[in-house]
Amino acid sequence: MFSITVRDHIMIAHSFRGEVFGPAQRLHGATFVVDATFKRAALDDDNIVVDIGLASQQLNGILAEFNYRNLDDEAAFAGINTSTEALAQVIADRLADRVHAGALGEGARGLAGISVTLHESHIAWASYERTL
Amino acid sequence: MFSITVRDHIMIAHSFRGEVFGPAQRLHGATFVVDATFKRAALDDDNIVVDIGLASQQLNGILAEFNYRNLDDEAAFAGINTSTEALAQVIADRLADRVHAGALGEGARGLAGISVTLHESHIAWASYERTL
Amino acid sequence: MFSITVRDHIMIAHSFRGEVFGPAQRLHGATFVVDATFKRAALDDDNIVVDIGLASQQLNGILAEFNYRNLDDEAAFAGINTSTEALAQVIADRLADRVHAGALGEGARGLAGISVTLHESHIAWASYERTL
Amino acid sequence: MFSITVRDHIMIAHSFRGEVFGPAQRLHGATFVVDATFKRAALDDDNIVVDIGLASQQLNGILAEFNYRNLDDEAAFAGINTSTEALAQVIADRLADRVHAGALGEGARGLAGISVTLHESHIAWASYERTL
Amino acid sequence: MFSITVRDHIMIAHSFRGEVFGPAQRLHGATFVVDATFKRAALDDDNIVVDIGLASQQLNGILAEFNYRNLDDEAAFAGINTSTEALAQVIADRLADRVHAGALGEGARGLAGISVTLHESHIAWASYERTL
Amino acid sequence: MFSITVRDHIMIAHSFRGEVFGPAQRLHGATFVVDATFKRAALDDDNIVVDIGLASQQLNGILAEFNYRNLDDEAAFAGINTSTEALAQVIADRLADRVHAGALGEGARGLAGISVTLHESHIAWASYERTL
Repeated sequence: MFSITVRDHIMIAHSFRGEVFGPAQRLHGATFVVDATFKRAALDDDNIVVDIGLASQQLNGILAEFNYRNLDDEAAFAGINTSTEALAQVIADRLADRVHAGALGEGARGLAGISVTLHESHIAWASYERTL
Repeated sequence: MFSITVRDHIMIAHSFRGEVFGPAQRLHGATFVVDATFKRAALDDDNIVVDIGLASQQLNGILAEFNYRNLDDEAAFAGINTSTEALAQVIADRLADRVHAGALGEGARGLAGISVTLHESHIAWASYERTL
Repeated sequence: MFSITVRDHIMIAHSFRGEVFGPAQRLHGATFVVDATFKRAALDDDNIVVDIGLASQQLNGILAEFNYRNLDDEAAFAGINTSTEALAQVIADRLADRVHAGALGEGARGLAGISVTLHESHIAWASYERTL
Repeated sequence: MFSITVRDHIMIAHSFRGEVFGPAQRLHGATFVVDATFKRAALDDDNIVVDIGLASQQLNGILAEFNYRNLDDEAAFAGINTSTEALAQVIADRLADRVHAGALGEGARGLAGISVTLHESHIAWASYERTL
Repeated sequence: MFSITVRDHIMIAHSFRGEVFGPAQRLHGATFVVDATFKRAALDDDNIVVDIGLASQQLNGILAEFNYRNLDDEAAFAGINTSTEALAQVIADRLADRVHAGALGEGARGLAGISVTLHESHIAWASYERTL
Repeated sequence: MFSITVRDHIMIAHSFRGEVFGPAQRLHGATFVVDATFKRAALDDDNIVVDIGLASQQLNGILAEFNYRNLDDEAAFAGINTSTEALAQVIADRLADRVHAGALGEGARGLAGISVTLHESHIAWASYERTL
């Protein structure tokens, strides 16, 4: 199995609901360093997993919708906790939609899976992985 | 599949038995930067994998039993080589015990697996992963 | 010249005033990974720069006042832009106050300077350094 | 499942053929920081995955054939794009050959798989994993 | 003294002349992860060292002239060894020119110095620092 | 001012004397990731600070005397606390001796200074810098 990963980041505000979150129930924020990984069983005709330029561009496009925002005010997240792991899924699913729509190139239709990791600090990160 | 990872570290002394270890048969030491990863198929009611605060606390509690010690003097390791990979298993198994005992919260009973990585330097690390 | 550095982090929300900040004028947030460096010309009687345990504890105490907060609501920052470089100065000055108050031990009175670096992402950071 | 990973690096020149590569069609170069991971289900008699010294040595030997070279001039790569993911496979396959030839020790015959990751920058990397 | 740093990278081919370079006399290449640091004694009216957006943009513009190229073919480097430390100076000097030309904003005229670090691998890097 | 830095590491056991060290008074250990920096005002005839190959080799030679050892048993450290900052000085001074002895090449006699940083974990490091 092959994979390529590209890294970008977002800087957002949010708060959590639920006693388990302790002080993180207050409005605070995070830099999420985001790693998006694309997997496939065999390389395409160019000997690559996916066009790394397109992959970076599409990831950046998805992140731009969240960047420099208060996620508590975003309709897409109404009523849900925007935990690091939940955001990893949102980003992976949106990348999958773009793959299916052809935004990562025709060759990308051969991708087997996507995983997304969000680093919230030097000592904590979360991931979500799915098939395509 | 979702996962969250928390990082901590220990500073220990030890030695190895066996020609394969060369100069590491002498008493020496290591800083192990320890990453503990918790996996599950679906998020819990709070939209998380596990309470990251509890996860950090339990990992720290397990590491405290080794930290600032000479592992050659610990009864738990009598007669075995405390290689990086072997220590990864010990830590993963102890985390699993704590999950089963409810120390990571009731929700943590839904965890699917644990993996532990110990970084012994900037150029070498070892991991152990298991189901729960 | 000798130095020791300890690392910790905070997760905060804030916004900026001024056209130069572009989209960062909106309420957003950041994880700041904070490195505090203590410098001195000669080591103390214990052969150290400063008690690393006390240094970590005092840094953590200062950061606790900001952590999981919206800096826009903090009286200490009323009317000022809480840029990464400005926060580096605030943290360095508070560490200096604690050194002068004896909170880092009597030996710490021999410290020559402090510098603080805040990493706001994997591609941007800011520092402030001062004498003691 | 256990694993150990060792890190090394190479500095090479190369160019790509295919419109998808844009400016990377020109002769340019890369530092590849190479992580080689060895996996097995159970530890050997020395309580290790594989002799980490031998693993580092064999990886270094394989990389020495590429290091400080223009890959466009290497017979082994005639007519193929030496993408990061393609190079990961070449290195993994050569490590597998060495395992089968006994170069990583008799115990290494119990290895279950190998994966190789090449970091081409702080924001992009690629991997290939295979069974043994 | 305050500073801010922004990170970018280039991927280039080159070769060296001189016995001291050993195998690096052959055509090879490197990824240089480039950190550009801007220093000043006091913050400007916006409470910053320099507009981090402009700083990133100007650094990127300078690096674009080298990126995906064989430095041996560049007129700017005719007859000189493009060592990591020499490239750090070139980039710092070009940043200084842009500061003086006003490309980093009027406020940037208050900058005291610039330093540039190029990481050529995980185990080697070089820097050049200068006043403005 | 120019500089180049090379990285290596050691894995040692040791203990500390003095109440300030708390649990670190017990025999424990550390991986020290060691960064050695060489500074000079102007580049030499090869357009470099110092031969990076020789620099790495000499650093490795110095570290070999400590590696895989219990520092409490080394005559060189009898009666002193081998704190991270104290070890940084020992390594810097030994590098300086080798520079003066010509082991880093004739050109290295133009070096202005050396600094050594020892990373004892992902959250703590210490440095010593000196002139030549």
